Amino acid sequence: MNPLERFYEKELPRINRFLESQAERMHVSVRPTVRHVLDSGGKRFRPVLTILMARALGYRGDDILPLACSLELLHSATLLHDDILDGARLRRGRQSAHVLFGSTHTILVGDALLALANRLVAEYGIPPLTRHLSEALLRTATGEIQEIAHLRDTDLSIATYYEIITGKTAFLIQAACRCGAVFADASPDMEEAAADYGLSLGIAFQLVDDALDYTSPASVSGKPAASDLKEGKATLPLLLFLADLDPQERRRLAEDFKMDRLTPDDLENLRDTIVSGGYADKTREAAASYLARAETALAPFPASPERDLLALALGPMLDRKK
Amino acid sequence: MNPLERFYEKELPRINRFLESQAERMHVSVRPTVRHVLDSGGKRFRPVLTILMARALGYRGDDILPLACSLELLHSATLLHDDILDGARLRRGRQSAHVLFGSTHTILVGDALLALANRLVAEYGIPPLTRHLSEALLRTATGEIQEIAHLRDTDLSIATYYEIITGKTAFLIQAACRCGAVFADASPDMEEAAADYGLSLGIAFQLVDDALDYTSPASVSGKPAASDLKEGKATLPLLLFLADLDPQERRRLAEDFKMDRLTPDDLENLRDTIVSGGYADKTREAAASYLARAETALAPFPASPERDLLALALGPMLDRKK
Repeated sequence: MNPLERFYEKELPRINRFLESQAERMHVSVRPTVRHVLDSGGKRFRPVLTILMARALGYRGDDILPLACSLELLHSATLLHDDILDGARLRRGRQSAHVLFGSTHTILVGDALLALANRLVAEYGIPPLTRHLSEALLRTATGEIQEIAHLRDTDLSIATYYEIITGKTAFLIQAACRCGAVFADASPDMEEAAADYGLSLGIAFQLVDDALDYTSPASVSGKPAASDLKEGKATLPLLLFLADLDPQERRRLAEDFKMDRLTPDDLENLRDTIVSGGYADKTREAAASYLARAETALAPFPASPERDLLALALGPMLDRKK
Repeated sequence: MNPLERFYEKELPRINRFLESQAERMHVSVRPTVRHVLDSGGKRFRPVLTILMARALGYRGDDILPLACSLELLHSATLLHDDILDGARLRRGRQSAHVLFGSTHTILVGDALLALANRLVAEYGIPPLTRHLSEALLRTATGEIQEIAHLRDTDLSIATYYEIITGKTAFLIQAACRCGAVFADASPDMEEAAADYGLSLGIAFQLVDDALDYTSPASVSGKPAASDLKEGKATLPLLLFLADLDPQERRRLAEDFKMDRLTPDDLENLRDTIVSGGYADKTREAAASYLARAETALAPFPASPERDLLALALGPMLDRKK
């Protein structure tokens, strides 16, 4: 077992117990949905980052769990709302909450989790924490709105693609890291370094996700293969592929994609072509360059076991299979 | 023009300008939906309450607009999510946002408004404000979840009905008042009095809404008559009517309502019977008793023009036609 696994083994039960205690205190009609989303096999990636970052920057207390877990609650709230958006029937191989509990109920449970997260953080009486979390949530929602606005848009520029993934994924991961630094009372420079690490890691995380969507079979990912392509999301593998087509071919495919005229067989062939053309690999290479930036961001950190763990967390990010 | 109208005439343009400035600063793809919900003819009731309450308790500054308007933004966010829930196609006589802009987009714009409200309040660096708002939002969502859980439930007790309307409506109005008091640095006793006023006013507000749903024609309210009955919401007029039926009649009606077997004619006849039986009037009487409690809560307030306006606001609440 490597040091990162040992850290997870120690912290995860505490995180899960805290989350369960919060679910327990919610209204009885909310609890099943909250437990469903919290028990869905998430890696508790955001709370772990908050804890690691705070410790790497000198925090030695034992009151960080509400802050760390508020990141998981915010993330869970966005999952509940996202799954409705995507019409996703499966999440990590299980039925989505809105299929089990109804869309109306699920929207509201998402709202309740957002409110709970804010309240947990407000209890500390440290206003910058609330400010960073609210700002991150605002940017997350804005990124998701942009993503919807560009569904089936193959004229999407790569710059806008990065703006969307930074919004929908990276800002919340950045907030997890920044809040850890704020909680450790880090210097402004260190806080910025923590934020840089989180932002690069978050972008890399989504790039790997977007590559895996093309390469990972449903049996591993728990969701249908090439679901982005099916749902009309133009992600980096498709955008890079399109950029290499001759103009006429590009126009034809773009038009078919826009009008949702591709049959399941067309989509499967397109997926094969994109993967065998190396465009998923190129997406992973882009992710690798962001992971390198994240590692660079750690350079000014004082030496500590937690700093090493933050560096150690980057490798598996690229190698993950789901 | 009475003093309350004069107050509105003075404050409303400032509130609306501030809200517009916030909409202007949001991402371009969010703005149309935000403007749609903000321009939908709301009375800015919650921000006005926050301002009046703060001034009644000694606040003399000029930096209350972000706080006051955050209440309107939270309220707007819940409207966006509610309309999706209710499948409501009309809101105050105009098409609902989710019909115009799509459900998926509308859920996320609601999230963005929740986040913006939290960020505005966090900027003050006064943690109790964030705490009270988060708590109110959590309770609002919980009240709405309970309401859905009891759709078509004519066994709903009157106590649970009050729990639902307190949740879905009164806690946010209470927070508007309490935050005004906190902002004015009021004593704990005064803060509690402000919260009592807001809670009673909020319950009365929803009781009047529930009565108007039976008595107000669509041409005035901007939504279909007896929409609660059609949507399966058992509100006080129906519950009081059911309580007066003999057990056999009650069971039959309850069963038909639960199974959604009532035809449009049945529903219209039922509405007539409930109104002519005086059950909407009884609901308004219940509202009047809560308004009296709100007035009592103002008793310990120091004499001031704003205290008088808070008292003056109660009468029109009962007399409103929509």
